[in-house]
Amino acid sequence: MNLYLAATFIRDAQYGRNGQFETDENSVKLYNLYTHWLPKVVAYFFILLLLSLAIFEKPAVPGLEIEYYVTMPMEVICLVVIGSRLFHLKLFSPGKTFYSDKKNLVVIATMVVVVIDMISYIALVNSGQAMYAYRWSRPLRPLLLVNIKEGRQIRRAFRNIRRTLPDILNVLVLFFLSIALFALMALKIFERRPELRLYTDNSPYFKHYGDIYFQLYVLVTTANSPDIMMPAFDSNKWFSLFFIVYVVVCLYLFMSIILAVIYKNYRKHLKNEIKKSVFIKRVKLERAFNELKEEVGGKSVVTEKTWYVLMKEVLPNKTQVYYSLLWLVLDKDANGYIDQKMFLQVADLLNVEVSEIRNQKHLIEKYWPHVYNSSVSIAVRQVVMHKFFRYFFDLAIVVNAFFIGFNLDEAEWFFLSVFTCEIILKLYTYGFSEFCRRFWNIFDFIVISAAFIATIIEAALEELQYSRETLDVLLVLRILRLLKLVGSIDRFKIIIGTLTNIAPSMFTYGGVLFVFYYVFAIIGMEVWGTMLSGDVNITFCNNPKLNGSEFARDHYCNNNFSDLLTSFVLLFELMVVNQWHVLTSGFVAVTSAWARLYFVAFHLLVVIVVLNIFLAFILEAFMLESSLSTGKFSNAVEEKIKEMGLWVSKKPLQEQLPVEHVQIEAPQSVLVDNIEVQPGPTQTPAESEAAEAADVVPEMKERRPRADTGLRFRIARRGTRKTEILLQRMFESELLHEEGQEMPATEHEIEEMEPEEIRPTPLTLDNVT
Amino acid sequence: MNLYLAATFIRDAQYGRNGQFETDENSVKLYNLYTHWLPKVVAYFFILLLLSLAIFEKPAVPGLEIEYYVTMPMEVICLVVIGSRLFHLKLFSPGKTFYSDKKNLVVIATMVVVVIDMISYIALVNSGQAMYAYRWSRPLRPLLLVNIKEGRQIRRAFRNIRRTLPDILNVLVLFFLSIALFALMALKIFERRPELRLYTDNSPYFKHYGDIYFQLYVLVTTANSPDIMMPAFDSNKWFSLFFIVYVVVCLYLFMSIILAVIYKNYRKHLKNEIKKSVFIKRVKLERAFNELKEEVGGKSVVTEKTWYVLMKEVLPNKTQVYYSLLWLVLDKDANGYIDQKMFLQVADLLNVEVSEIRNQKHLIEKYWPHVYNSSVSIAVRQVVMHKFFRYFFDLAIVVNAFFIGFNLDEAEWFFLSVFTCEIILKLYTYGFSEFCRRFWNIFDFIVISAAFIATIIEAALEELQYSRETLDVLLVLRILRLLKLVGSIDRFKIIIGTLTNIAPSMFTYGGVLFVFYYVFAIIGMEVWGTMLSGDVNITFCNNPKLNGSEFARDHYCNNNFSDLLTSFVLLFELMVVNQWHVLTSGFVAVTSAWARLYFVAFHLLVVIVVLNIFLAFILEAFMLESSLSTGKFSNAVEEKIKEMGLWVSKKPLQEQLPVEHVQIEAPQSVLVDNIEVQPGPTQTPAESEAAEAADVVPEMKERRPRADTGLRFRIARRGTRKTEILLQRMFESELLHEEGQEMPATEHEIEEMEPEEIRPTPLTLDNVT
Repeated sequence: MNLYLAATFIRDAQYGRNGQFETDENSVKLYNLYTHWLPKVVAYFFILLLLSLAIFEKPAVPGLEIEYYVTMPMEVICLVVIGSRLFHLKLFSPGKTFYSDKKNLVVIATMVVVVIDMISYIALVNSGQAMYAYRWSRPLRPLLLVNIKEGRQIRRAFRNIRRTLPDILNVLVLFFLSIALFALMALKIFERRPELRLYTDNSPYFKHYGDIYFQLYVLVTTANSPDIMMPAFDSNKWFSLFFIVYVVVCLYLFMSIILAVIYKNYRKHLKNEIKKSVFIKRVKLERAFNELKEEVGGKSVVTEKTWYVLMKEVLPNKTQVYYSLLWLVLDKDANGYIDQKMFLQVADLLNVEVSEIRNQKHLIEKYWPHVYNSSVSIAVRQVVMHKFFRYFFDLAIVVNAFFIGFNLDEAEWFFLSVFTCEIILKLYTYGFSEFCRRFWNIFDFIVISAAFIATIIEAALEELQYSRETLDVLLVLRILRLLKLVGSIDRFKIIIGTLTNIAPSMFTYGGVLFVFYYVFAIIGMEVWGTMLSGDVNITFCNNPKLNGSEFARDHYCNNNFSDLLTSFVLLFELMVVNQWHVLTSGFVAVTSAWARLYFVAFHLLVVIVVLNIFLAFILEAFMLESSLSTGKFSNAVEEKIKEMGLWVSKKPLQEQLPVEHVQIEAPQSVLVDNIEVQPGPTQTPAESEAAEAADVVPEMKERRPRADTGLRFRIARRGTRKTEILLQRMFESELLHEEGQEMPATEHEIEEMEPEEIRPTPLTLDNVT
Repeated sequence: MNLYLAATFIRDAQYGRNGQFETDENSVKLYNLYTHWLPKVVAYFFILLLLSLAIFEKPAVPGLEIEYYVTMPMEVICLVVIGSRLFHLKLFSPGKTFYSDKKNLVVIATMVVVVIDMISYIALVNSGQAMYAYRWSRPLRPLLLVNIKEGRQIRRAFRNIRRTLPDILNVLVLFFLSIALFALMALKIFERRPELRLYTDNSPYFKHYGDIYFQLYVLVTTANSPDIMMPAFDSNKWFSLFFIVYVVVCLYLFMSIILAVIYKNYRKHLKNEIKKSVFIKRVKLERAFNELKEEVGGKSVVTEKTWYVLMKEVLPNKTQVYYSLLWLVLDKDANGYIDQKMFLQVADLLNVEVSEIRNQKHLIEKYWPHVYNSSVSIAVRQVVMHKFFRYFFDLAIVVNAFFIGFNLDEAEWFFLSVFTCEIILKLYTYGFSEFCRRFWNIFDFIVISAAFIATIIEAALEELQYSRETLDVLLVLRILRLLKLVGSIDRFKIIIGTLTNIAPSMFTYGGVLFVFYYVFAIIGMEVWGTMLSGDVNITFCNNPKLNGSEFARDHYCNNNFSDLLTSFVLLFELMVVNQWHVLTSGFVAVTSAWARLYFVAFHLLVVIVVLNIFLAFILEAFMLESSLSTGKFSNAVEEKIKEMGLWVSKKPLQEQLPVEHVQIEAPQSVLVDNIEVQPGPTQTPAESEAAEAADVVPEMKERRPRADTGLRFRIARRGTRKTEILLQRMFESELLHEEGQEMPATEHEIEEMEPEEIRPTPLTLDNVT
């Protein structure tokens, strides 16, 4: 039982979870079931299903409308699933922690509200008062996504936003005060010039304070520049001074300051989150240690025997070889036990990727070794690994681009087969697992095979009407193929590397935007719904109030809230900002000037807050990248692994797997009395480093009769390291100091913390945002 | 002579100059003349005069046109002045340094080119071929501004831009390649849909690759969003996916990355510049030390006697008291000499502001002490210093705002006198010099007195036609008065403090923008000049080629290159970005599609590069502010001054000068045997700190019979410190290490450096940008 509990703590530390649970056997089992991937996926699925119901509910996407008596049972099922997951959490949560966690309360409250809404909706519809029936609880649905335990990344991003808001509030108040002053000035100056008129609708120029205020706010977004200035400018050129001063102060100054304040606070919160996650990891490991410790020579230690039993519990899928490799690293002085200090590095060690060299043997080599090792096969593989092989196919892509550009579609089959050959040859030479290690290979594989399928479909459907859309997809795929060229140009590698590195975190911001979009879209649909609709009649968008309006004149009728997807496109246009005042004017025209509040709120929240936080994230990610390139941050575990020569470096495919290299076969026995360093025909700096490290080995060999196991740690290069780990190292010196002070209060302090799961490994920077 | 040379070196170190000069007496004198403020101001004046000639040359600002035979002699005078300053520089420059300095060569080349241009222009005009006569050298004029020794801040900003360009080049190439790919996709998809048409001019939709490329570039600037999408969106909503993906990749991703790369490099270059300036300062001080050193007890030192003679040379306007105060700080162990290590701090010490307490006596107190110290006077002063005094006038401002808002102009005289009273009372209580220490007092004084003058003018001119413009100014002044309220709200103080702190540096970026604007404006005027002109006829802007164009329809006719000031307004509109493609279309219509290059170049250089560097500067300034607030950075000199109790803190006026405080009279004698600490009725933390420091004093008193002089160092609070000094401290630990290594190679290395003047004191962050 102790072992099972310790294993749970170690897994928590490894994945950065901070689940609170009773330590009786039943609760721990329930906790482990709760953190299993399957119930998580199920919960996610039903939340997404709940959110996607808006596509089918009125106003639905055309052709997808489903009546409420179908969607509501689905909604109930979703709520039941979410509720049962919450009940599961309640079962193993210690005493008051379940109810003291605001997240759980929010989820419960939301579910109650949704049920009330559903009942009242049914009652209203069935009592014949369908015109008063609104599903007003729908904008609350994303609360479930954000507050369920699984939504931690998005919740963290929201927490960052919430914490940053008070800091930018001062700047925002000052900003709105400045607009108020400038608006007063404009009112005073232009009210004495009634002859001026706006060009767009010939209305009086800067007449009412509220309108001026809105116009000047729009000017900060630059959307009505220079049009708003032109009437004044045409009457006297010196009026441009007013607008220039205004734009410099309110746009260039204030917007820069807002970004600066957000960036400053982003860094601050990032550091705090990292501190917390390091702290939690340490507490979990300490608890595990306390469960496992034995007294040896007056010291509390974990023995080798305990280690093997523990590992069998923590990682049942791994081999004995792997456990002993880990022990080799931990128990450096080979005395058969490790103390608490060493034990606290277990989580870091488990997060180092380990690859088995013996498994890198090629499939064909395994089953038809005579074919694979024939002289023809070796020659082919040498050709493929040569750099001219890459150059040749890069050239082929360029030629292909010209063929596409000049519509020479006849050659398409030729190019498709050429690129297919490339993929097959590469697969043969490098083997499947190595082939998949490179992003561009996977990309190539997907694009080419999709093109194959699409081409076949196109040929089959040639006479049918659908052909045009298939051809579109095919064309896009063909052109995407050209993108591969970017991957083979060295100068872009750093940028691409950084981008792929921060891509997962960017999806978090995609999630945040989705939540905002969803809430605003639902509200928009409830308020405006089908009030205006897309129509070729440009004078009034099927709504007489828009007759001759700028909105209709600019053909914006299709930008409306008639269904969820269309609403999302409209909100995207609002996020891009340009012409948002014209879009606003359309919805103001069909309702009232208060509608502006909706659009200003969207701009403030999404453009000024969320997009700036996104920008702060990108800035910080790039600053981190530059810190990494200096190689400042490496930790004890990695140093030790390198020192022992127990690592493979991650190099470009061509260098990493020369023919001779692939043929090395690691000893199959579990315990062999030497530590082997991979020989290679071309000793790159990394390899010679490893060779140097091997000099340390003979000494060690005497001290411990341990194994070369065929297993190697794969220490990620800069760029592929997990960002969270790097962040932890960046702040390591500060953290170690502060932690030392915090340590005594461990048990109390961990209760005080927000019960968040912090999972450092498979995620990157977003963990902490 | 040695002394004179040493004094020159010390002044160079103090102001961060790095002038190269021969060390003979004549050259040093010439150098000192060269660095005098008067010839500098003269040089600036003539450069600005040269630049402002564009206002009077054809196409001139209406009503200001001057014929070429008047402007050209003025141009010649300007060139002569600039040339003679360059000759002056040549006189004292050592050997080859003058010609190895690229700046000088650029200035000489520019002057030669301008002379050739002038001669050929005169020749062409007088030979009757005036239609071929262009003043094509005019865009080169800003080269003189940037490359003359005085333009160092702007030059530094340009250097930063130049150095950052290679770093963002990779991103830009990738960015343009992405647009190329997307444009190809758009071409392929939409060329099979010829039925689609643009709504603006009914032209075919996405037909030609070049046009698509330009349209997609415009979309990155968001200027044609969502219009460019609407025809496709109206035909099939799924086309929005193409535009959304494009905007996400090319706008949100690439533009963020460009900012991130610029910010990263900005920090890097900032650090290098700071390192260089610290290095130069040290070299200068070492040279000064070598000129002054004497051997005392086998050590090279500077004696107290030498110090006093030296100071008389360096700062002839300061008193003996000041010199001895400085010595007091430097010679801490009171042995009558200082070594090289101590001497290297002289420049920092000279840059600490010193104020004389005895001079802070109120003028009225000095001449009518019985009036000033009467009970009425004391009561008045106590009232003024009370916080309710401030609240009362803040309230008055709010009331005033409502009166302005509701056009109750009758009360204006009342408010004007109320605010005048406030100023007089404050002046009486705090005295002129203390009154001027607060930014908001000066602001108030200017606004109120300007309002007084304008009101009088308005009353005098009431019947005249000019009255309307005077009234505009008056209104603006009245409303500006409200701005004072912002200064009295505590929560805004940090933001306002940061802003005033970085304001001087922002002017540098103003200068950089001015250079870009000037070059582009001159080119624009030469190319388009009066091709189109402002006209109420909206169908064609006086140019038939614009008949019915979007440019004319949007009333943009007045946005043209008809004179320098109008061009500047147009370029500002282009910088704000919105509608820039419509503005471009007008100039394309009257010339050719190649005109787009001009506008794209302006957007790339000004919006993408310069504005992002400006944003990087603001970001860094705010990050610095947060470092300062933690008080990490203070240097040895300031520590010592505080330790000795020889400082006054800079506090808000109210706290700093309580009545009793003002009455303290410092001893007038130069050498008095005690060091006095200012007593105060309210001991703020800073003061009690000073009081603690006083405990150290008795001990010191025994050791050295030194003075309280009535002088105190004024150590700036966070926020008013000079940014460069803070930057130096931020990088101090790194710098000290690296400098130690560099030191031996001093003489050689300083020759290798770019002969720049680096002047840390009166300027802020811009020194290093």
